[in-house]
Amino acid sequence: MANASSATKDAALATAAELLVERADTILAANQADVSRAEAAGVAPSVVDRLRLSEARIEGMAAGLRLVAALPDPVGETLAGWRRPNGLEIRQVRVPLGVVGVIYENRPNVTSDAAALCLKAGNATMLRGSSAAIASNLAVAAVLREACDKVGLGADAVCLVEDTSRESATAFMRLQGVIDCLIPRGGPSLISAVLEQATVPYVIDGAGNCHVYVDASADLDMATAIVVNGKTQRPSVCNATESLVVHRDIAGKWLPELADALPTVTLVGDEEALRVVGSPRMAPATEEDWGTEYLDLRLSVRVVADLNEAIEHVRRYGTGHTEAIVTRDRSAARRFQREIDAAAVVVNASTRFTDGEEYGFGAEIGISTQKLHARGPMGLAALTTTKYLVDGDGQIRS
Amino acid sequence: MANASSATKDAALATAAELLVERADTILAANQADVSRAEAAGVAPSVVDRLRLSEARIEGMAAGLRLVAALPDPVGETLAGWRRPNGLEIRQVRVPLGVVGVIYENRPNVTSDAAALCLKAGNATMLRGSSAAIASNLAVAAVLREACDKVGLGADAVCLVEDTSRESATAFMRLQGVIDCLIPRGGPSLISAVLEQATVPYVIDGAGNCHVYVDASADLDMATAIVVNGKTQRPSVCNATESLVVHRDIAGKWLPELADALPTVTLVGDEEALRVVGSPRMAPATEEDWGTEYLDLRLSVRVVADLNEAIEHVRRYGTGHTEAIVTRDRSAARRFQREIDAAAVVVNASTRFTDGEEYGFGAEIGISTQKLHARGPMGLAALTTTKYLVDGDGQIRS
Repeated sequence: MANASSATKDAALATAAELLVERADTILAANQADVSRAEAAGVAPSVVDRLRLSEARIEGMAAGLRLVAALPDPVGETLAGWRRPNGLEIRQVRVPLGVVGVIYENRPNVTSDAAALCLKAGNATMLRGSSAAIASNLAVAAVLREACDKVGLGADAVCLVEDTSRESATAFMRLQGVIDCLIPRGGPSLISAVLEQATVPYVIDGAGNCHVYVDASADLDMATAIVVNGKTQRPSVCNATESLVVHRDIAGKWLPELADALPTVTLVGDEEALRVVGSPRMAPATEEDWGTEYLDLRLSVRVVADLNEAIEHVRRYGTGHTEAIVTRDRSAARRFQREIDAAAVVVNASTRFTDGEEYGFGAEIGISTQKLHARGPMGLAALTTTKYLVDGDGQIRS
Repeated sequence: MANASSATKDAALATAAELLVERADTILAANQADVSRAEAAGVAPSVVDRLRLSEARIEGMAAGLRLVAALPDPVGETLAGWRRPNGLEIRQVRVPLGVVGVIYENRPNVTSDAAALCLKAGNATMLRGSSAAIASNLAVAAVLREACDKVGLGADAVCLVEDTSRESATAFMRLQGVIDCLIPRGGPSLISAVLEQATVPYVIDGAGNCHVYVDASADLDMATAIVVNGKTQRPSVCNATESLVVHRDIAGKWLPELADALPTVTLVGDEEALRVVGSPRMAPATEEDWGTEYLDLRLSVRVVADLNEAIEHVRRYGTGHTEAIVTRDRSAARRFQREIDAAAVVVNASTRFTDGEEYGFGAEIGISTQKLHARGPMGLAALTTTKYLVDGDGQIRS
C-alpha cells in the first residue's frame, strides 16, 4: 500500500466514484434501513438528517473522491536534502503514516471522504462509524473495498469495523501497534472519549471558542461584516465566531450598529457592553459564557480598555483554534499575531476561513487544535510522516 | 517566554554557562552527596558512573549551553506562505510548543542539556529527574533558574520537580493542559511507563534493533567496515547495529572474514550462518535474538536468499529506527530505501549516523521512533509547533 503508485491510488478513487453512483440504489436502500431504525427509535430530526443520504449526497461523495484523485500525491515529496562534510547525503522524504484509524459519528459520507484522503496519502484505513449508520457505512465501504480490489491494492486497504458496540470503540482506540494515527471526527463527547481512552497516537479536532477583537482603529464597516460573517454564515462549525472583544473607545458608537446587524443573534455582554446596547437586546454574560463554544446564534461581548486586556482575555478563554483582530494599526496587528497562541491568528478577515479548502489544500481531514504533528487545517500532508534517506559511499563514524 | 528575543534567550544560555563553571564547587559537592548515597546503597558502578560529575563534565555541560546559544533560533521561521484567490495571505510560521516536560534517569547533565534546547526553542521547561540525582539536579537547575532570572525571563522558565517519588512521575506524565509535550530520556522501562501512563502528548525515543543487510553485490571491505563500526564503535546506543542480514551468494566467502574482524563480539546465527562460521565462534540464534536490541557486543546473523527475504526479515524484526543496506546495485538500494519503513534508511554507511549532530542539527533532544510530529533525530525544530498567520483586508466567507 505504502509503495502504490499515484496512478493506482487515483484509479482506485475514480473506480470507487463510478461504483458509488452505479450502486446508488443499494446504498440508498441500506441507508433507508438506518433512517427507519433511527426514526422508530425517536431520534431527533436533526440527527436523522445527518444520517440521511440522497442521490445528490451520493453524487457529492463521488465528486469528493474525484477531487481527491485530482490532488497532488504527497508521498515521495522531498522536504529537505543536504550534504554533510563527510559526504553523506541526507534527504527527508514524505511517506505514508501506515494505518490510519478514523472514528466518527452519524454522517455516512465520512466513510468515503475520510477513506479517500487516507488512501491518496498511501495509508490503509480502518473506519469505525456509529451503530446508527452501520448499514449505510457497510454499503459505502463495500464499494470502496471493491474499487481497491479491482485496481490491485486489495480490498483490505479500507476496512470498516462491523461491531459498533461501545466496547469496540474503546478497543479501537487502544489498537497499539496496529493504528499509526487515530483521527476522531465528531463532537465533544467523542473527543473526550479519545482523550481519556486512546492509547494510539491521535490528532484531535477540538473545540473552537473563536474571538474577534475589534481594535480602536478598526474600519467599523469591515468589523461589522467580519463579525456578522463569523457568527451567522454557519454557526454550527468550529471556526464560527463565538465571542467579540471590543475596544472601549469605539464600543459606544459601534456596538449598537452591530446589534442591529445581528437581528437573529442572542447577545450577552459584560457590564460595559450592556450599558451601551441596553436590555433586553443584550443580557448579562456569565463567567461560563466566556468559555463556551455556542455553535449557535449567540455571541458574548466583552469591552476592554486596550490591546493588553484583549490579548489577556483571548489567552484566558480561547481554545487555540482561530483568533482574529480587526485593526488599521500595523503594530497592534503584529502584536496580536505574535502574542496569541492559536492554530490560526487572523488580521482583518472572518474566522470562518480556517479550513483546508479555504487554505488551498483541496480537501481536509479535519482541523487540528493540538500542537504536535499538525496544527490547523489538515490536508493530505497531515496524513503522512517522513523518513530520512541517507546515502553514503562507505562512511563510518569515528 | 514564547515572545522572548533570540538575544535574551542566548544571554540566558551564556549566563548559565558562566555560572555553571563559577559554581562548580557547589555542584560537585551536591553531586558527591548523590554519589555517596548511591554507593552506600550498593548501586552498580556503571550506574554510579552515569551519576558522577567532574570539573570536566561540568565544563562539558557549559560548552553544551554555549553551543546551543550559537545555533540559529528556530522560532519565527516562515515554513510556507501563499496568497489565495480572494487575496488572503497565509503564512505558516514556527512557534514554541509552550511547556516541554522532560523526564529522565540518572545523568545530571541532561538537566542542562535538555533545558538548553527547550529554552532556545522558546519553551518553558519542566524537568523531572531521578531520585538518585536529585541533589545534583537541584544544584544545576538553580544555576539555570538564576540565569533565566538575570536576563529577565524569570526563574520559572526552568522548573525542576523536587518530589522524586514514583507517584510524582506518574502525576507528571498526566499534567494535561500544563505540559504541551513530554520527552522521556531513558531506557525501556521509562519508555514503557510513558506509553502506559502518559496522558499528555509525548515524543518517544524508542528502541533501535538496527539491521545491516549486505547484498550480493556489496563491496565486502566496505561491508566489513560498516558492520564493525555499527557494532563496536559504541555498542550501548540505540543506533548501534544489532543484526546482520547477508545474501547467500557472499555468505560463504565473507562471513568468516567478518567474524575475524569482530574478535570481541559474540556471534549468533541461523543454520546457514552457523554452517559457514562454525561453532564455537558462532552459537545458534533463537527466535528471541532476532527481536532483541542487545546494546552490547553481540550480533545476530541471518542468511537470506535475496533482497525480498532481507526486506521481509527487516520488516518483521526492525523497530523502525535505522536500517542499512550495503550494495553496489542501484536498483537494490532504491528498493530497500522505498520499501523499508524506518526513521532512517541508509545506503552504504554505518547505522551510527542517525544522530542530530551527525545530521547537522547542532544538537539533539533525542531520536524519535514514532511517526507523528517528529521522526528520527530531533533538533530544535522538533521542540516547536507552527501557527498560521492569515492577513486580509476585510475578506468574509460566502
